[in-house]
Amino acid sequence: MAVKNYQVEGMTCGHCELSVQEEVGEVAGVSGVEASHETGTVTVTGEGFTDEQVTAAIEEAGYRVVE
Amino acid sequence: MAVKNYQVEGMTCGHCELSVQEEVGEVAGVSGVEASHETGTVTVTGEGFTDEQVTAAIEEAGYRVVE
Repeated sequence: MAVKNYQVEGMTCGHCELSVQEEVGEVAGVSGVEASHETGTVTVTGEGFTDEQVTAAIEEAGYRVVE
Repeated sequence: MAVKNYQVEGMTCGHCELSVQEEVGEVAGVSGVEASHETGTVTVTGEGFTDEQVTAAIEEAGYRVVE
């Protein structure tokens, strides 16, 4: 089981967190997503997902991965 | 047709605007709602709605009317 953290710009509230969680949750292999607008972090757990897939999902939700 | 403005605290993004618009749009007599997180304003148009109803709807959405 992999656990990866992403730093994300632009999340300002709980709705933003939900949008990111929904979109990233659809990536194949992802079993859990925790987003925090306070810290700008998105923590993804699962098996077999790639950084590219997670980054694309976060952008699809309307936000930007900064590292 | 009445047009009324409300100053609202706590909207931080477009999702917040949508939440307010959805909730206030359900008030009887309201025909239009425009919310802006940049200015913190909610503009309500319609006929026969009361400030109390709009304020209650905004609070139901999770925000606070400040004037």
